[in-house]
Amino acid sequence: MSDLLLIIVGAAVILALSYACFNFFMVKKMKEGTDRMQEIAGAIRIGANAFIRYEYKIVAIIGAVVAVILGVLISWQTGVSFILGATLSATAGFVGMKIATYSNVRVANQANETRDLGKTLKVAFKGGSVMGLCVAGFALLGIIIVYLVFGVALGQINDVIEGTVQNSIIFPALETSFTMTVSGYALGCSIIALFNRVGGGIYTKAADMGADLVGKTEAHIPEDDPRNPATIADNVGDNVGDVAGLGSDLLESYVGAIMSGVILACEMFLHGLAISAELLHTLLLFPIVFAGCGLLSCIIGISYIVLKRKLSSNVHMELNVATWISAAMSVILCFVISFFIFKDFPQEELGLLGFRLGNISPFLAAVFGIAAGILIGIASEYYTSYDYKPTKKIANSSKEGPALTITQGLATGMISCMIPVVILGVAIFGSYLVAGMYGVSCAALGMLSFVAATVAVDTYGPISDNAGGIAEMSKLDPEVREITDKLDSVGNTTAAIGKGFAIGSAALAALSLMNSYLYAFGGVDALGNILLNIVNPLTLVGALFGAALPFLFSGMLIEAVAKAARKMVDEVRRQFNEIPGLLAGEAMPDYKTCIEISSQGSLKEMRFPCVLAILFPIVSGFVFGAQFVGGLLIGATITAIMLALFCGNSGGAWDNAKKFIESGGVMGHGKGSPAHDASIVGDTVGDPLKDTVGPSLDILIKIMSTISLIAVVIFSQYNLFGVLGII
Amino acid sequence: MSDLLLIIVGAAVILALSYACFNFFMVKKMKEGTDRMQEIAGAIRIGANAFIRYEYKIVAIIGAVVAVILGVLISWQTGVSFILGATLSATAGFVGMKIATYSNVRVANQANETRDLGKTLKVAFKGGSVMGLCVAGFALLGIIIVYLVFGVALGQINDVIEGTVQNSIIFPALETSFTMTVSGYALGCSIIALFNRVGGGIYTKAADMGADLVGKTEAHIPEDDPRNPATIADNVGDNVGDVAGLGSDLLESYVGAIMSGVILACEMFLHGLAISAELLHTLLLFPIVFAGCGLLSCIIGISYIVLKRKLSSNVHMELNVATWISAAMSVILCFVISFFIFKDFPQEELGLLGFRLGNISPFLAAVFGIAAGILIGIASEYYTSYDYKPTKKIANSSKEGPALTITQGLATGMISCMIPVVILGVAIFGSYLVAGMYGVSCAALGMLSFVAATVAVDTYGPISDNAGGIAEMSKLDPEVREITDKLDSVGNTTAAIGKGFAIGSAALAALSLMNSYLYAFGGVDALGNILLNIVNPLTLVGALFGAALPFLFSGMLIEAVAKAARKMVDEVRRQFNEIPGLLAGEAMPDYKTCIEISSQGSLKEMRFPCVLAILFPIVSGFVFGAQFVGGLLIGATITAIMLALFCGNSGGAWDNAKKFIESGGVMGHGKGSPAHDASIVGDTVGDPLKDTVGPSLDILIKIMSTISLIAVVIFSQYNLFGVLGII
Repeated sequence: MSDLLLIIVGAAVILALSYACFNFFMVKKMKEGTDRMQEIAGAIRIGANAFIRYEYKIVAIIGAVVAVILGVLISWQTGVSFILGATLSATAGFVGMKIATYSNVRVANQANETRDLGKTLKVAFKGGSVMGLCVAGFALLGIIIVYLVFGVALGQINDVIEGTVQNSIIFPALETSFTMTVSGYALGCSIIALFNRVGGGIYTKAADMGADLVGKTEAHIPEDDPRNPATIADNVGDNVGDVAGLGSDLLESYVGAIMSGVILACEMFLHGLAISAELLHTLLLFPIVFAGCGLLSCIIGISYIVLKRKLSSNVHMELNVATWISAAMSVILCFVISFFIFKDFPQEELGLLGFRLGNISPFLAAVFGIAAGILIGIASEYYTSYDYKPTKKIANSSKEGPALTITQGLATGMISCMIPVVILGVAIFGSYLVAGMYGVSCAALGMLSFVAATVAVDTYGPISDNAGGIAEMSKLDPEVREITDKLDSVGNTTAAIGKGFAIGSAALAALSLMNSYLYAFGGVDALGNILLNIVNPLTLVGALFGAALPFLFSGMLIEAVAKAARKMVDEVRRQFNEIPGLLAGEAMPDYKTCIEISSQGSLKEMRFPCVLAILFPIVSGFVFGAQFVGGLLIGATITAIMLALFCGNSGGAWDNAKKFIESGGVMGHGKGSPAHDASIVGDTVGDPLKDTVGPSLDILIKIMSTISLIAVVIFSQYNLFGVLGII
Repeated sequence: MSDLLLIIVGAAVILALSYACFNFFMVKKMKEGTDRMQEIAGAIRIGANAFIRYEYKIVAIIGAVVAVILGVLISWQTGVSFILGATLSATAGFVGMKIATYSNVRVANQANETRDLGKTLKVAFKGGSVMGLCVAGFALLGIIIVYLVFGVALGQINDVIEGTVQNSIIFPALETSFTMTVSGYALGCSIIALFNRVGGGIYTKAADMGADLVGKTEAHIPEDDPRNPATIADNVGDNVGDVAGLGSDLLESYVGAIMSGVILACEMFLHGLAISAELLHTLLLFPIVFAGCGLLSCIIGISYIVLKRKLSSNVHMELNVATWISAAMSVILCFVISFFIFKDFPQEELGLLGFRLGNISPFLAAVFGIAAGILIGIASEYYTSYDYKPTKKIANSSKEGPALTITQGLATGMISCMIPVVILGVAIFGSYLVAGMYGVSCAALGMLSFVAATVAVDTYGPISDNAGGIAEMSKLDPEVREITDKLDSVGNTTAAIGKGFAIGSAALAALSLMNSYLYAFGGVDALGNILLNIVNPLTLVGALFGAALPFLFSGMLIEAVAKAARKMVDEVRRQFNEIPGLLAGEAMPDYKTCIEISSQGSLKEMRFPCVLAILFPIVSGFVFGAQFVGGLLIGATITAIMLALFCGNSGGAWDNAKKFIESGGVMGHGKGSPAHDASIVGDTVGDPLKDTVGPSLDILIKIMSTISLIAVVIFSQYNLFGVLGII
């Protein structure tokens, strides 16, 4: 049966990638509009291409070093699968960005030609669907390759079953196995995600803040005004940050969720869990098949919008239908495969895994995950939408000036951590109760099983945003801008749910990887249950260091954005002063210099935080050993979740508080009032928090867990404290 | 020998309290100055008295309820010692506030009459010394009473040694002992500290922000200008927040540090640590004697300033000499008592405790604590003083407007967490390596052994600040204000070191209490070592909830301040508009209404966060059981440390960035420039963070640990999850 299932997954992958290809060329052959539009779109495309090429060069060098180290120290399979993961993830990001820079202008043109919300939505969504299908398609493609080539053809799964393992070249005493190969693949995806998110995040927010700080606040010209020299850079930023960054981020989450289940199953088996080889095989297969069925569901959900003859102008509803079709079908298929795939195993054997409710246990765990993702999204929505009290309170505080806007926003962000954490806690405990630790990774996967649909929705937002920018800069009819703005604002709301899935799945996947980490170095008690004694002083100190790490990482990212933004501010001011007639609209600004400043700034600033994230767990492992790193991981995971929620929600709330004032929600304090200025300060402060820091933290905890899981086989044996006999 | 040692401690207490009494009346009999000064000082005094009386009434009701519950459910001794702790802590806060409201005007008058920095310093410091001596004196007085009455006279220490324990009235199965009585005392101190810190913190910052938001930003009148209706309330706030709040906070820390060692020793013994009764006695005595010797050292250190005939005008140096005398003598005496008190025990027996270096192990552990406290203080100093890069960067960012001021300050605050945590980690690990878990509480106590001197220095700052306010409002010569400003600014620098001790000792004491908590419910492994398995799902979920709690608590406090400040802003604006001639200085503002707004606001807003802190661990204990609360405590402790550092340092840095601009540090952007306005926004945002949230978090983690330690004897046996058999 497993062959049949894999064929289905393979078919889903081929279907998805062909579909993406089809949509890509469908969009590309559409008309681009006026010369002016083509010119602007061309500038954005060139800027985005240049940045991503340069970024990938840097990542390629770092990746090559990592691949060689993995290949030599761990196993050549780990090195190769690392390269595979990195390549596929980079490709997905690149393709997504490519189509985004083709779609933006075509969306603007469609809006201009038809003035029809539904038709414009279709173009934007088609563009987004390319990214969504690529993310899931490439991720699963790589997983199938790893599974078939390394697991089956090269016999690594058999090695696990027979307890034979392969020795590393440098350290012959090291035992490496399929888990290392799988972890290598996940790490490859993570490393691209980290750089794309951090680099793209710094780029987009530096440009955005730079454009706003001078344009809106000092020169009082509207957003995306062509007189603003930073405006093209701002639009480039949307493509490299919100599209390529988001895409590789979610690809990484998706892979992390699938692989954490696979790795955990192997580790439990390797460390004495008395299940049969068949059950192990099934446990390894389930996440992959579940993901494949999810992808099939998404193809259908996406087709609803792509193929529907006439989309209604209720954009929100249309998008929701597409998402719900995908989600509902995923859930149903999950039930079916969970039911049939585990049907033939006796309850006693399933009970060893903690499957309290028999063969449908993994399904129930996945439902816990999906429910938690949705609820966390709703909670974010509550704290950040101006339909509810918290954001209204921030908007009202703006009447007293920027200090109270900030204060109230900080308070909202801090308070907003509790409810999502409670939801997450219930999901962890619930999925554990029904299906043991394996259930926790099923919950993570549940959240992401329909990732293609959520990414499609998430990506269509920045595409519409860009289309609006192009419309503004090409001086199209204001009605065009209204259409794209409407699409963009709906995108923001749906993105809130997406964020819930991102943070929730990151937390669950990191915890699942954490458990594999403990198995890998023998952190188990006398009964074979995993154990990490947090009051062991070394572990405790590790947890403290780990807890400080997300703060340090976040602080560095914020500072990086601020630094790059300050340079942008200086350049924009310089151009306003030195180019005669610019503000009067009689001269063209020098867009290129601004693009270069953002590029150079982000490429320079992204290196240190990224390298820190990669090296910190490894170096501390080689000094203090595995117990310390165990504490480090748990401490970092816990505070990263809090900070990600805090940053995401306070940033979102400030953004919408500003929009609330702009929409006239605060009586007597509309656009241009001091209250509005105060709310712009809040929005500017929130920008790097919600778009650079928050999403990067999700990746931070997974990359740390993955890298530790790989390195622990070495540093649990060779570390300074161990050698010195300190502990 | 133990009797002799206790007599020395008793003598230190009597000496300290008599000395405080002497200084109190010495200051009180000094002249108050002009009628106008007396009038203003009287208004401040009345306002402060009224607030503290009303606050204490609320606390008395809550305290009475808690005392009865403790008395009935745990033991009558626990209830009585709780009342003792609460009473002594409340008294210390009250006396300190009293003397502060007497000293402020006398300091102003002294500066006015003599125009001599040294002479003015002496008056201010004498005032501060009353608070310092009372904090340590009352705390130790209570501890001696608990030790002698309950421990010795009522035989509770013998009960511990003989393994006989007393049964509670309601739950006869509960075993209660000396640790419960001691914990009750600590809890009494904590509860007062919590309310004083939170209530006082909201009061002072609501008044401060309210005064600044309208006065400085809108009306452009200087600080403490008599035309500003909120200015008296602002000065009242300094007394209730910075004096009474700080005093009971540090009293609580001091008691926590001493008691955590005592409780831990009892718990280890009760749970099978094979040491002799003599060694247990010595372990119980050591923290008390160490604290007593520290108090004696402080009496000498304080006398250096009080008795020195002519103080130099190098205020910073004079204060440092006093502190260093106290600290150095404490260290020397600690060595002496550690050496002699543990001299006669064989190394094998000491080895059971983890004393790797024999009898001087506790001394070395204390040194780790003291060194860590100083280094954390220096790190705070680096991040918050405008002599260094981080704060200068914030000041320079202000040139680009308030958004970048805030962004840069947030980044600085986040980055600033890492170094103190590393220092703390080294201290924890180092003190554990030399003296086991008992060593960790010795490290905490080391930091606080010379608390009388640090509190004296910390309190003289707000007294000088108040004196400056009185000078301004009484329209004394500007030279007077210069003298008090100089005193105040030195106070701010020395206070940074004090903050290092506060957060460091809170973390260490909380960890030590956490260990006792684990012993208390049997969280031990097969070898009798304490164990908390953080990857147990229930514990893990507890840790997540716990981690979110400090965020929730902080958010609620910030919101409370913002809410009260908004009311104050409205009132000040109303008065400016409605009282004719107020801004021209021809009419008097209505100070009283502003005082009432601050009082009512803070008393109303403080209740919910305080009750949450108290109830959260108890309620979750009765639902989810002891493993969950274990996770809760560790999660809360870890994130509270981070948030406290973040809030304290970002707030401090914003404050000093503003001062840097005012001092002309940013070329071309002085007082009154847009950059200065931006820096005021930063300062206003930072105010509640550094003065309300940061210090309250220190108390939060200790009160949660203490209350859990008491309640765990019940909820480890009676909890919903246990009854339902879920885990």
